[in-house]
Amino acid sequence: MFAGKISAILSNNCMLTKDRPVLVGVSGGPDSLSLLMMLQDLGYPMVIAHFNHQIRPEALNDARYVEKIATNLGLPFVCGSSDVPNYANSLHVPIEEAARELRYRFLFDQARIYSAQAVAVGHTADDQVETVLMHILRGSGLKGLRGMSYRTDSSQWDQDIPLIRPLLSTWRKETQDYCTQMGFSPVNDATNTDRSYLRNRIRLDLIPDLEKYNPRFRKAIIRMARILDDDFQVLEQDIQSAWKNCCVADGDGYVALNRDIFLKAVTGIQRGVLQKIITDLVTGNKDIEFDSIERILGYIKQKQLKEYYLGEYDLRLLTEEYSIYLYREGSRIPDNNWPQLYDSSPVFLQVPGSIQISPTWKIESTLIINKIPEILKICNSNHDLFQVWLDADCISESLIIKARADGDSWKPLGLEQGYQKLSDFFINEKCPLRARDRWPIICSGNEIIWIPGYRPGNTVKITQKTSRILYLKISSTDPN
Amino acid sequence: MFAGKISAILSNNCMLTKDRPVLVGVSGGPDSLSLLMMLQDLGYPMVIAHFNHQIRPEALNDARYVEKIATNLGLPFVCGSSDVPNYANSLHVPIEEAARELRYRFLFDQARIYSAQAVAVGHTADDQVETVLMHILRGSGLKGLRGMSYRTDSSQWDQDIPLIRPLLSTWRKETQDYCTQMGFSPVNDATNTDRSYLRNRIRLDLIPDLEKYNPRFRKAIIRMARILDDDFQVLEQDIQSAWKNCCVADGDGYVALNRDIFLKAVTGIQRGVLQKIITDLVTGNKDIEFDSIERILGYIKQKQLKEYYLGEYDLRLLTEEYSIYLYREGSRIPDNNWPQLYDSSPVFLQVPGSIQISPTWKIESTLIINKIPEILKICNSNHDLFQVWLDADCISESLIIKARADGDSWKPLGLEQGYQKLSDFFINEKCPLRARDRWPIICSGNEIIWIPGYRPGNTVKITQKTSRILYLKISSTDPN
Repeated sequence: MFAGKISAILSNNCMLTKDRPVLVGVSGGPDSLSLLMMLQDLGYPMVIAHFNHQIRPEALNDARYVEKIATNLGLPFVCGSSDVPNYANSLHVPIEEAARELRYRFLFDQARIYSAQAVAVGHTADDQVETVLMHILRGSGLKGLRGMSYRTDSSQWDQDIPLIRPLLSTWRKETQDYCTQMGFSPVNDATNTDRSYLRNRIRLDLIPDLEKYNPRFRKAIIRMARILDDDFQVLEQDIQSAWKNCCVADGDGYVALNRDIFLKAVTGIQRGVLQKIITDLVTGNKDIEFDSIERILGYIKQKQLKEYYLGEYDLRLLTEEYSIYLYREGSRIPDNNWPQLYDSSPVFLQVPGSIQISPTWKIESTLIINKIPEILKICNSNHDLFQVWLDADCISESLIIKARADGDSWKPLGLEQGYQKLSDFFINEKCPLRARDRWPIICSGNEIIWIPGYRPGNTVKITQKTSRILYLKISSTDPN
Repeated sequence: MFAGKISAILSNNCMLTKDRPVLVGVSGGPDSLSLLMMLQDLGYPMVIAHFNHQIRPEALNDARYVEKIATNLGLPFVCGSSDVPNYANSLHVPIEEAARELRYRFLFDQARIYSAQAVAVGHTADDQVETVLMHILRGSGLKGLRGMSYRTDSSQWDQDIPLIRPLLSTWRKETQDYCTQMGFSPVNDATNTDRSYLRNRIRLDLIPDLEKYNPRFRKAIIRMARILDDDFQVLEQDIQSAWKNCCVADGDGYVALNRDIFLKAVTGIQRGVLQKIITDLVTGNKDIEFDSIERILGYIKQKQLKEYYLGEYDLRLLTEEYSIYLYREGSRIPDNNWPQLYDSSPVFLQVPGSIQISPTWKIESTLIINKIPEILKICNSNHDLFQVWLDADCISESLIIKARADGDSWKPLGLEQGYQKLSDFFINEKCPLRARDRWPIICSGNEIIWIPGYRPGNTVKITQKTSRILYLKISSTDPN
């Protein structure tokens, strides 16, 4: 019955075939030995891999034990070794985390070398209970509470080779009994009883304690993980379709979302979409903290144009009126066809004349000295903020096109008294933050006479006395 | 800050208004006293309700204490009392469950009497942690793990009056401090330290134990419940729309689903839809066991026509080729316009003649004695199984229309040798189980000559020798 169950799991859940080898991580303990023997009995081709963490002196014996079994079965055997304690020290990570990292790296390296269809490890139902409990203690969401899966595609270790765990519904005791029955003497990992590891304390102390409250506690957790895994699948589908629904651009190192659509989703979806984006942008980032997602949600909900640095992911968040951008530091996010200067040094524009201010934007100037009343009519009914008619008499014949500078201020159309700071003007007009530094500003001498896309200056507006009109037009030369 | 937080929760999460009274359940402990004082400070009109469980002799003092506070504040006070231990004994339920049942029944009864907008209870963040832990110990799904909500609409106690829990993010310690600060001496419920109650053991022993693994364990659980509650909302939306998508009929005491659409949904959704249907059909049923849902899913996946009795809900499940029915015992589920006899006693049909076999079905008979070759052509190209042409020479002039009987067998068209059991015929043809008992069967003497909707008998088929044809037609007289 044990073999029958595993056989079904291997083909239905792990989706293994018998045409390519499975790389099996074998510590020599009862779990991985049982896994090895099961796969052997069922006729799956294998490569046996053992990893020495260099934590225990007797680990070399374990390697020899596993090698001997592999040799007896005529199976290829590979052994890797790393100084885990040293690696943990140098990276300031817990030793379990370092061991896990180096072990999986080795297994997947070997899987690639042997063109294995999957990496198989011997996690049991007991490991599952421990894992779920660790997530409960931490206060995890569905992703953690559902525990490990029979098959994990595109894990952090490899995009193509899946990680499989065929024994997830087999109890550790069953693997021990199976080994006894098969005449094996599995190695005994002394670190398994070391209570300085959280997982060991959970196994040795917490679970027996919890079984006092419910003698069937371990089964209850396995059932819970199963329900939650199914619920997680539903949620994942929802998040995927919500992401498609609100993502407006998805390029190299950045994602742009439609802010309104994103904010209309329920919180669970918002959280999931952000987690997905961050996971996609930050490869290898597996644990995304609840508080961090809450903070980002808070930023997005605030209706202001702002850029945030998300130190925990080395990402930037940019909130604009209609869009949200999440991007890796240094990524070029799309500029939405804003007029932008090629560089920030000022350029001159003759009147009449024309100048290319960037590869995709040019500005033209024309002087109009007759048909003033007709022009006035056109100008009064104009809605295109990328052209303007100004009083040429108040303007010098060589214009300066420059980027904003600290302390810039001006008199936008309508402001009769005093000056407005250019920085305040950009904020009021909700000019995207990242567009401001290169936004072209048209000056006559020291005076700003037009900010394309927004407003002309008040001092150069056309009046009854205007005799000559300066016509300015900024346009995109980008065929797209 | 405490009052500010509660004020926001009362209006945003509990959705209370100040125009109608809130019925507040007050035990006299620090939690409910704090709740009472908060609501009073914020100007919500109240009715104070106290329930005496008759478990502790000193409970009468508690009632007097609460009454005094209500009187001092000039608030209406109601007191209820029930012999909880006796009720628990007679129903064989745990005393906590009996207490809960009788207490809420009393509170909602009073809420209806006072036209209260809500029943408010003093559950704190600590109660939330205990509740979630109880669900973890039991291996619950999202619905349990997300814990209690600030506001629960249409609970099992009342469809219209919500149950609200404004203190769910307030720690018990905070309510104790608040009471001290306000000069109250809350009553001390001695049963709170009685370790024969699971909840008390969880509070007194398990939580302090778990805090050794994570000192911020209680906060972690509150965070987990919050994430899962949001995920639950997403899932609920999905289940609601999946239900709309696969429900083909929803009547008094029954629900019919499209089997194919239901089976195409992922497991998490299937489970949710079944839970929703059962909860809707069985009022007051709150805990639907995982194993029971799995069993029902198993029944539905089996492609066979069968009726099951679901004892745990006193419901029936009927699986048909294209539909699934869940219904309360005795409910009339739709018959999909099958021909059905009004009652099971046989009736006679003259040839030629016509008879109403039920309010909505009639059968007509006609004798055809000329134009036989032309009739044969029509008969050969016929696809309407509700009419038939038979050899009148082999049939008596008075037909019997009857319901099936044990042991019936016949020769359906094509069966040259032997007889087929009518029960086997119905199974092979996938005739809906519940339609079989009243399916009209047309006999000549003792011989079945036609089963409308399926096949004529082999002995009465038209041959080269046929000189007279019997034409039978069954039709619905229902305008719908």
